[in-house]
Amino acid sequence: MQDPKDIQDIKRPSKELIDKLYKHVSSATAAGDLNKLGVSNAFIQGPTSYTPGKKIVGPAATLQFMPKRDDVYADGEYTDPELQLHRHALYGTQAGDVIVVDARGVMSSGVFGNMMLTYFVGAGGIGAVIDGCIRDFPEAPEMGLWLKGTTPNFHTQTTQFPYAVNVPIDCSGTYVAPGDIIIADDDGAVVVPIHLAEELAELGEVHAEWEEFSRQKLEAGGDLRLYYPLSDQARPEYEEWKNANGK
Amino acid sequence: MQDPKDIQDIKRPSKELIDKLYKHVSSATAAGDLNKLGVSNAFIQGPTSYTPGKKIVGPAATLQFMPKRDDVYADGEYTDPELQLHRHALYGTQAGDVIVVDARGVMSSGVFGNMMLTYFVGAGGIGAVIDGCIRDFPEAPEMGLWLKGTTPNFHTQTTQFPYAVNVPIDCSGTYVAPGDIIIADDDGAVVVPIHLAEELAELGEVHAEWEEFSRQKLEAGGDLRLYYPLSDQARPEYEEWKNANGK
Amino acid sequence: MQDPKDIQDIKRPSKELIDKLYKHVSSATAAGDLNKLGVSNAFIQGPTSYTPGKKIVGPAATLQFMPKRDDVYADGEYTDPELQLHRHALYGTQAGDVIVVDARGVMSSGVFGNMMLTYFVGAGGIGAVIDGCIRDFPEAPEMGLWLKGTTPNFHTQTTQFPYAVNVPIDCSGTYVAPGDIIIADDDGAVVVPIHLAEELAELGEVHAEWEEFSRQKLEAGGDLRLYYPLSDQARPEYEEWKNANGK
Amino acid sequence: MQDPKDIQDIKRPSKELIDKLYKHVSSATAAGDLNKLGVSNAFIQGPTSYTPGKKIVGPAATLQFMPKRDDVYADGEYTDPELQLHRHALYGTQAGDVIVVDARGVMSSGVFGNMMLTYFVGAGGIGAVIDGCIRDFPEAPEMGLWLKGTTPNFHTQTTQFPYAVNVPIDCSGTYVAPGDIIIADDDGAVVVPIHLAEELAELGEVHAEWEEFSRQKLEAGGDLRLYYPLSDQARPEYEEWKNANGK
Amino acid sequence: MQDPKDIQDIKRPSKELIDKLYKHVSSATAAGDLNKLGVSNAFIQGPTSYTPGKKIVGPAATLQFMPKRDDVYADGEYTDPELQLHRHALYGTQAGDVIVVDARGVMSSGVFGNMMLTYFVGAGGIGAVIDGCIRDFPEAPEMGLWLKGTTPNFHTQTTQFPYAVNVPIDCSGTYVAPGDIIIADDDGAVVVPIHLAEELAELGEVHAEWEEFSRQKLEAGGDLRLYYPLSDQARPEYEEWKNANGK
Amino acid sequence: MQDPKDIQDIKRPSKELIDKLYKHVSSATAAGDLNKLGVSNAFIQGPTSYTPGKKIVGPAATLQFMPKRDDVYADGEYTDPELQLHRHALYGTQAGDVIVVDARGVMSSGVFGNMMLTYFVGAGGIGAVIDGCIRDFPEAPEMGLWLKGTTPNFHTQTTQFPYAVNVPIDCSGTYVAPGDIIIADDDGAVVVPIHLAEELAELGEVHAEWEEFSRQKLEAGGDLRLYYPLSDQARPEYEEWKNANGK
Repeated sequence: MQDPKDIQDIKRPSKELIDKLYKHVSSATAAGDLNKLGVSNAFIQGPTSYTPGKKIVGPAATLQFMPKRDDVYADGEYTDPELQLHRHALYGTQAGDVIVVDARGVMSSGVFGNMMLTYFVGAGGIGAVIDGCIRDFPEAPEMGLWLKGTTPNFHTQTTQFPYAVNVPIDCSGTYVAPGDIIIADDDGAVVVPIHLAEELAELGEVHAEWEEFSRQKLEAGGDLRLYYPLSDQARPEYEEWKNANGK
Repeated sequence: MQDPKDIQDIKRPSKELIDKLYKHVSSATAAGDLNKLGVSNAFIQGPTSYTPGKKIVGPAATLQFMPKRDDVYADGEYTDPELQLHRHALYGTQAGDVIVVDARGVMSSGVFGNMMLTYFVGAGGIGAVIDGCIRDFPEAPEMGLWLKGTTPNFHTQTTQFPYAVNVPIDCSGTYVAPGDIIIADDDGAVVVPIHLAEELAELGEVHAEWEEFSRQKLEAGGDLRLYYPLSDQARPEYEEWKNANGK
Repeated sequence: MQDPKDIQDIKRPSKELIDKLYKHVSSATAAGDLNKLGVSNAFIQGPTSYTPGKKIVGPAATLQFMPKRDDVYADGEYTDPELQLHRHALYGTQAGDVIVVDARGVMSSGVFGNMMLTYFVGAGGIGAVIDGCIRDFPEAPEMGLWLKGTTPNFHTQTTQFPYAVNVPIDCSGTYVAPGDIIIADDDGAVVVPIHLAEELAELGEVHAEWEEFSRQKLEAGGDLRLYYPLSDQARPEYEEWKNANGK
Repeated sequence: MQDPKDIQDIKRPSKELIDKLYKHVSSATAAGDLNKLGVSNAFIQGPTSYTPGKKIVGPAATLQFMPKRDDVYADGEYTDPELQLHRHALYGTQAGDVIVVDARGVMSSGVFGNMMLTYFVGAGGIGAVIDGCIRDFPEAPEMGLWLKGTTPNFHTQTTQFPYAVNVPIDCSGTYVAPGDIIIADDDGAVVVPIHLAEELAELGEVHAEWEEFSRQKLEAGGDLRLYYPLSDQARPEYEEWKNANGK
Repeated sequence: MQDPKDIQDIKRPSKELIDKLYKHVSSATAAGDLNKLGVSNAFIQGPTSYTPGKKIVGPAATLQFMPKRDDVYADGEYTDPELQLHRHALYGTQAGDVIVVDARGVMSSGVFGNMMLTYFVGAGGIGAVIDGCIRDFPEAPEMGLWLKGTTPNFHTQTTQFPYAVNVPIDCSGTYVAPGDIIIADDDGAVVVPIHLAEELAELGEVHAEWEEFSRQKLEAGGDLRLYYPLSDQARPEYEEWKNANGK
Repeated sequence: MQDPKDIQDIKRPSKELIDKLYKHVSSATAAGDLNKLGVSNAFIQGPTSYTPGKKIVGPAATLQFMPKRDDVYADGEYTDPELQLHRHALYGTQAGDVIVVDARGVMSSGVFGNMMLTYFVGAGGIGAVIDGCIRDFPEAPEMGLWLKGTTPNFHTQTTQFPYAVNVPIDCSGTYVAPGDIIIADDDGAVVVPIHLAEELAELGEVHAEWEEFSRQKLEAGGDLRLYYPLSDQARPEYEEWKNANGK
C-alpha cells in the first residue's frame, strides 16, 4: 500500500480548456475525434451514468484498489481512518476534479459512501467514474456518477482495499493517467489524454458548425445523403441558413 | 458485404393489424399467446427499454453486423458514406417501421448516432431494437429504444461493420425475419412471426376482456382463486360488472 | 415439488421492530452494522431496484424455483392453477410481507405478472426481491421491486418451475430464511437474520446521531478529518449544534 | 441444514438394467433417445470429464450446497466432523453409486478431498458429477469425475456449506432426483429419469444395430446419403454384412 | 434457410502452398506475421484444441447456424435428412478440407456426431473449427478438432439449426470467408485471408531460419539480449553455426 | 511504464524451506493450513495447470500488464526489444524462480512465447502462473505452466502491454507480492505469504503423518468415522501400523 506521504497532486488544465471542451465536445465527439487523432480506445466501457442528463468535464484524480489478502489488509472500517487510502484520494480535491477509480469490477464493495462524497463535493469535486460501486446512493450529493452499480457494503467489507492514489490505473480496461481529462455524459465516460486535449477542443468546434443545420433538415424528413455528412450540393442551402440565423 | 443494390424492401402489414396489436397486445400477452400458438421463444432477451413507458408495434427492417477483419473492412467513418451499409438500412424507412439490429452484443460500437436516428424518425421510423449500443444517446430523437447500452464510439470504431440489410438475423439469440412484427414495451421486445400476427391480435382481444374486472377485485384484496384466472364462481359477478360498466 | 398442504406460514416480527428499522437503518447501515455483528455477507447482490426511491422493511416469505425437466413439470400455465406453487407462495400474504424468490438468475422467466402482484399488494404485501424477472412491469402495482430484469415470458414458459414455499433459499448467492427481515432501498437488498434484528435496530439509532451534523459540515467544505468519523476535536462543536437544534 | 438423521437412502435399479445401459447407451444416445421420449433437457451442462475415456452408469445419490451466512454456518473444517453433511452424503454409499452435487458453480470450494473420495470408492462408489470442484485432484482415487474444475480450497473454506442429502437438486441447471440414473462419458453427464430407464435401454439396443456397419462404410468413403441414416437402398448390403459377420 | 441447391463449392489453394504453410508457419507465426501484413485480428479466439499435438492447414468450408424459432425450424433429427443443411456442408468435402462452423457459442448443441465426422474424414476432411460443440467425442475419427466443448445433445436438440453453407461467417468473433486458409495447432486456430497466404508462407520461411540457433543458445543459458531477436553481435556466431550444421 | 533501471530483484528463501514445502505441502494442504493461520484467500483462482502432474514450489517474481492506449504504447513487437518490460521481468531469473503475471485475464495476448520461456528455463526458472495466455505452447520448454489459455497472438498484439516488474500484483483476484512463495500443482496455484512460509512448512509435516495410514484403511473400505480424521478409537491401530512400517 502506498504511503499517504508519497501521494502526488495532479496537474490541472486551464479553466478555458475545460470550458471549451464542455461546450463543444460530448463523449461521442471525443471518442470519434480521438480516433482520428490516433487513439481508438479512450472509452471507459463498463461504468454507466447513474445521474442521467448530467455531463462533466474535468481532470482525473485516480484511486487504485487491490485484492485483500488477510495478512496484508485485515482491518475493519473505523480503525484509524487516516490509514484508509480512499480518504487520502479525496484530501487533495480542488474545484472541478473528477475522481476515477480502478475498483476491479467488484460489485460487493462500495468505494465511497455519502459522507465521503459529500466531503468531495464540498471541496469542489464534480464527478466520479468507478469501475465498481458506491454505497448510500439514496443520499449521494449532487454530482455526476458513472458506476457499475450500487451496494450497501462498505469499501473494504469484502474482497479489496484501496492501494494507491494518483498513479496510472486500469479503469474497466482503459488506461487513465492522473491529470488526463474525463468527459462523461449519458453515452459513458471517455478519457482524453492531456496532451491531446487542446487539439480535441479545436476539432470539436469545427465539428459542431453544420450539425445543427443538418439535424433540422433531417428532422423535417430531409435526405440523409444530402445532409449527413453535409454534401457539396447542400452547402449553399447551409450558407443561406447560417446567414438567416445570424451564425 | 451485401451490395446496396441487392437490398430488398420489406413487406408491411396493414395499419389495421398494427392498430389492433397496439391496442390489445402487450409484449407479455404476445409472448404468452405465441407460446400457445407453438412459438415459445419469441422474446428478444437482452436489449432492454431505454425509453421507459414507451410501447411500439411495427414491422421489422433488419441490419446485420459482422466482425471486422482488417483486410475486409478497414476504412474510417467518413470515407464515402454511401458504402456504409447501416445508412442503406435506413434509406427504405417508411412510416411505422422498426429497425432491428444484430449488433453481436458488442458494447463498444454505437450502431447509430443521433443524426442517423433523426433521419430515421424524420422518415417515419418509430423504434429500434439493437443487440448492442447506440451513441449520442443524450441527443436521440423521440422514438422507442431497446438496447444493451450506450457508447460514445461510432459504429465501426472497434470490432465490427454492417454487413447485410433486410435478411433474417440473430438478434440476441432470437430469429427475426424482415417483415415480422415487433411488439416492444417495458417488459422487452417480442418478435411476432408475420403469419401468426392476425391470430395473435384476435387472441389478445379475448384475453383482455375479464382482466380489468379481475384486477379491480384483486386490488381491493379479492381472492386470487376467485378472480385469476376468472373462476366459474366469479363469472356472474363479472357479468354484472360488465353490465354496470357498459362493456 | 412441495405439496401445497405442507407449506408453513412465516413468523412475523413486531410492528415496533419494523418501524425502528425503517426509521434508522438503511440497507447500507444494515450491511455495515451486521458486519460488526459478525455477518459480512448479508447483501443480496444481483437484484437492483426497479422502483427508485422506494425503501421497504419487512419479513421474508420465500419461493424457490427449480430447473424444469420435461417429465417432472411439463404443463402450461392455466392447467389447474391450484397446482402452481407460486400462487401458494402468495396465499399466506399478510400486511408488510416481502416475497423473496430464488429464481436462479433466469432472465427468460417472469416469476409474477401484474395480476399476481396486484393480488399480493391487495393482501398487504409491500415488496419483492427476485433473483430473476417479473413480467407485465408496465402494469405492476405500487410496491418495491428488486429484480434482475423484466421479461414478457410467464413463469414456466422456459426452463424452470416453482418448487417450494417458505423454506430457506439461495437468493442470488445469499442465504435467506423465511421470517428473516429484508431491508431494501436504492443500494440493494440486505437480509437481516431475525435473531440479530433487535440489536441492529439499536445500533442504527446510535449510528445516526452525529451524522446529520457531520454531513452539514462536509457540505460546507468542512475537513473530513474533523467530521467523519466525528473527531474528539469536533465534539464540542457538535454538542453546541445539538443544543442549538434542540436535539 | 438437514438433520443427518432425516437422510433417506436412495432406491437402486437392478444390475441388469445398469449393465444394459452401460453396454448400449452412451451419453449421446441417452440424450438423443430421451429427447424422443419427451425429455429434451437431460444433459447436465457444465461439468466436463476430468477422467478422459471413462464411462459410468449408476444411480444418483445427491448432495446440495447452500450459500454460507456467517450466523448460519460459521465453523471450521474439523469441528465435530459428524456435523458435516457432505460426509453423511457418502455414508450410505453402495456398490455402483454415483454422487451428484449441486455445488452452485462455485470455483473456490473443493466439495470433496482425496480422503473422502477414497472412502467413497472403498465403499463401492464409481463416480461423481459436481457443479463445482474437488480438491486433492492429484491424489484422487480411480473413479469417474465430471467437474467444473479443481481447487486447493476445502469445502466450506469460502462461500458455501453442505445443506441436504438425497433430495432433488439443481445440478448446473438440470433437475436430478435421488435414484435417477447417471450416464456419463467424454461427452458429459446425462440424467436418466428412473421411470424412463428401461425404455431407454431397449431403444439403445435397437439403435446400435446398423451403426457399426454404417461407420465402416463411411470410414471407407461411403456416401452419407446411403449409410446414415441407413437407406432402403443400402439395407440389402447391410443384411449381407450382418450375415457375413455372424451378427 | 439456404436452399441446398444454392450451395457454392469453395476454391481451393494449391497443394504447394498448403505444404509450405504446414512446414514453416505455426498458428503463432501466422498471427504475428499477419499482424505485420496489417491483419491484427485473425485469431479465432474461443475454440481450443481437443486433439492436443495435432496441427492442420487447409481451406475453410463454412457452416452457419441460426437461432431456432419454433415456426421456422421445428422438426426432429431424422425427418428427411436431406433437409438438414449440416449434411450438405459435408457433401462437397475434398481432401484437405477444414470445416469451420459458426455455432454461436451454444454449449448444448452437438454440431456433428461421430457418423457425420466419420463421413467427413472418409471424404478427405482433416479438421473442424467450431464455435460450439460436437457430440460422440469418445468415438470421433482421427482428425483435428478445435471446439468450445462436447455435448451429448444433437445439433437441433436445443436452440439452433443449420442455416447456410459456404458463406462468410462469424466464428467466435472472427470473420472467416469460405476458401480462406485455416492454420490450427495447440495455440488455437488462425484464419489466413486467402489473398495473403502466399506472402505469409514466404515470411514464415525467413522467420524460421535463425530461431533454431537461438533456441539452442537460450536452452544452454545464453543471454536473451544476444540471441532473441538475433543481435548483430551474435550474427557471426550464428553464421558459424549454420556452416557447421550444413544449413 | 516502469523504467527498467528501477526494477528491484526479489528476496529468495532458503533452499531448505523450499524443499520442506515441496516434500510435505501440496497446494491443497497450503490452502487449508493458511486458512488456519488466518489467510483464507491464498488460492489464485483462474489459471489451471497446462502441465498435468507437475508440481512447483518457488519464490514469485512478478510482472504487471496494463491496458494499451494508442498514445501510451503504440509500438510493434521488435522495435527496440530492450524497451519491452516483459523481457526485463526475466533478466533477473535465478534457479528455482517462478514468474507470476497479472495479465488481466486477457485471452488474446500471449504473455511469453517459446523463445522467452526457453531463456527463462535456461536461466533456472521452474514455472509460470499467468492470469492469461502464453503463445507457442506446442514448443514450450519443460516447466510448470498455470494459465487461463493459449493464443497465437504475441504479448502486445491486442489490448495490453507490460507495465511493471517485481511489484505487488493482482493475479486473477489474489494479491501476490514479489518474494512470496508459490505452491502449484494440479489443484491450482496458491500464494504463501513469505512471513508464514516457515510455519506452514512445519504444519505440513505434522499433517501428513497419519494420512497415509488412513488412506490405506479407507481404500480397503474402512469407516470414514474411524479414520478421517483419525479418531481416538483408531489411534492404537495407527500406532501399531507405524511400528510395523518402521515410521
